[in-house]
Amino acid sequence: MKAIVLQELNQPFQLKEVAIPEISQNEVLVKIKSAALNHRDVWIQKGQYGGIRFPVILGSDGSGIVEKVFDTENEKWIGKEVLINPSMNWGNNPRVQSKEYVILGTPVDGTFAEYVKVEARLLHNKPEHLNFEQAAALPLAGLTAWRATMTRAAVKNGENVLITGIGGGVALLCMQFAIAAGCHVYVTSGSDEKIECAVKMGVKAGVNYKKANWDKELKNLSAGFDAIVDSSGGETFSKLVDIAKPSCRIAMYGATLGEFNSGIPAKIFWKQLDILGSTMGNDDEFVNMINFVNTHKIIPVVDSVYSFNQAQSALEKMSKGEQFGKIILAVDL
Amino acid sequence: MKAIVLQELNQPFQLKEVAIPEISQNEVLVKIKSAALNHRDVWIQKGQYGGIRFPVILGSDGSGIVEKVFDTENEKWIGKEVLINPSMNWGNNPRVQSKEYVILGTPVDGTFAEYVKVEARLLHNKPEHLNFEQAAALPLAGLTAWRATMTRAAVKNGENVLITGIGGGVALLCMQFAIAAGCHVYVTSGSDEKIECAVKMGVKAGVNYKKANWDKELKNLSAGFDAIVDSSGGETFSKLVDIAKPSCRIAMYGATLGEFNSGIPAKIFWKQLDILGSTMGNDDEFVNMINFVNTHKIIPVVDSVYSFNQAQSALEKMSKGEQFGKIILAVDL
Repeated sequence: MKAIVLQELNQPFQLKEVAIPEISQNEVLVKIKSAALNHRDVWIQKGQYGGIRFPVILGSDGSGIVEKVFDTENEKWIGKEVLINPSMNWGNNPRVQSKEYVILGTPVDGTFAEYVKVEARLLHNKPEHLNFEQAAALPLAGLTAWRATMTRAAVKNGENVLITGIGGGVALLCMQFAIAAGCHVYVTSGSDEKIECAVKMGVKAGVNYKKANWDKELKNLSAGFDAIVDSSGGETFSKLVDIAKPSCRIAMYGATLGEFNSGIPAKIFWKQLDILGSTMGNDDEFVNMINFVNTHKIIPVVDSVYSFNQAQSALEKMSKGEQFGKIILAVDL
Repeated sequence: MKAIVLQELNQPFQLKEVAIPEISQNEVLVKIKSAALNHRDVWIQKGQYGGIRFPVILGSDGSGIVEKVFDTENEKWIGKEVLINPSMNWGNNPRVQSKEYVILGTPVDGTFAEYVKVEARLLHNKPEHLNFEQAAALPLAGLTAWRATMTRAAVKNGENVLITGIGGGVALLCMQFAIAAGCHVYVTSGSDEKIECAVKMGVKAGVNYKKANWDKELKNLSAGFDAIVDSSGGETFSKLVDIAKPSCRIAMYGATLGEFNSGIPAKIFWKQLDILGSTMGNDDEFVNMINFVNTHKIIPVVDSVYSFNQAQSALEKMSKGEQFGKIILAVDL
């Protein structure tokens, strides 16, 4: 089969011919239709991730059709259109992943291939309102967004919610979930075009963070936020703390701008803030996320679709942060 | 009556003769037996606090006997031994105080006097197992400790809990509440003597934060913490984040060491931490705190008792941070 293989650190992806995986107990073989890129794939390529082994087939997100099962009890899956939960071995504590937790696509081979083997329990029916490309855009970003927005920040109908850095796959799904939950949603971005797109999708307003006083402008527009979902950290964070209402929940699912700046600790206690770390999510959250997507007919945004032999170009596009939505790899292109 | 009056900023307290307050609707007059100092009193004296007016009688904590009431429905209180909830106008949202929220002892006259007038709804029966000095040690510190430890960090039976900076009135009550709740409690202090006292009171172990590698020593002793209650912030904070178990709740009720240092943001999301700001507490929390103190026969630690005309010396002692427990002012001394 064709597969996108990472042979060693800091090398480009290689499209290679490899053996179709053999399945054993509890496993199924899924014929991949679409996969999606994640920043995780870049970090793995650069060695900024634990538990890397080589060679490896990357890819955490995949949609496709179940081709083969090992156990008779799983025969019901054959021919079904599915997406795959990339979250493996979360463990028994819903609050935090176990030490055995891994994500599909390192160390285990992932979805950037014509076939992937996974445990049957990771299969979910593809939402009927999504095509394979849209379905492949959902798993990792949707689970991360769900936990950050719905479990951790726990946004509620009628609340003012800020999602920072709109355009990335996770931020967009945070935004879509919060809108569907009945929140008044505001966004930031470094691109006016992305803000315009977000407004068309239902946000109240957005402000370009390259402007001076973007924080004050957002506070004037919104009168402050009940909840914020952020992945920037860095210099942005003290401004978020300023435009947070008292008792605001700030969920953090990343810190791309690095260390916090000044002015934060005293506001955390005076304003009775919750700063809530979040990464990926447990199996119940995945089920709840898929159900919510079905109920609200949420469609993950696909920025662009690449063929397998353009995978390295696709990855470089994502690294530049110019996309609005997920970048998809399609097997049949 | 005698009262300790602050005439203007940065002046020492003055013991003066002033008029006994006149009570009106809903109010009662309490003859104070004991009052307690709080760091808040120093901050007010130094002007580091909003809403200051002069002259003012400071004092947020008081115990005494109800001498006079205005309304017939409050006659049941006459002659009763009481302590006073210093928290006024919290408002309807249990999560955060309203804009009208004030604490007894600025801007309204407080407990450093022979008499204080307060609304009857702030009265609570003095726990029978406490004398007036111990009862005066409880209200502000107890409410702050209760919210930080029991509401925000929400410590549970069997958990590993770290209380930093043991010796201060709030930290000691955090420790006592967590021990009574069945936690395995650990402490830090800059004084070996204070750690010894804490161990006698039931903590598992303590480490002097002046030692190199105090954080590693604590981690070895405890295997990490499910919850931490801190008021230091500053350079300590990243070490707390390191010795926190995944999904740890870190309640912050102060940040005496100031700005956060490095190494914090990525750990917040990878470890799925909760950083929870906390200050004072609502009326239900005050009731719950008093009930818990009665149930578990908790005795707030009294460091020392001063007469009213030694108030300025008492305040200076507290500023040095040498005390173990609350510093009390007694009217009859």
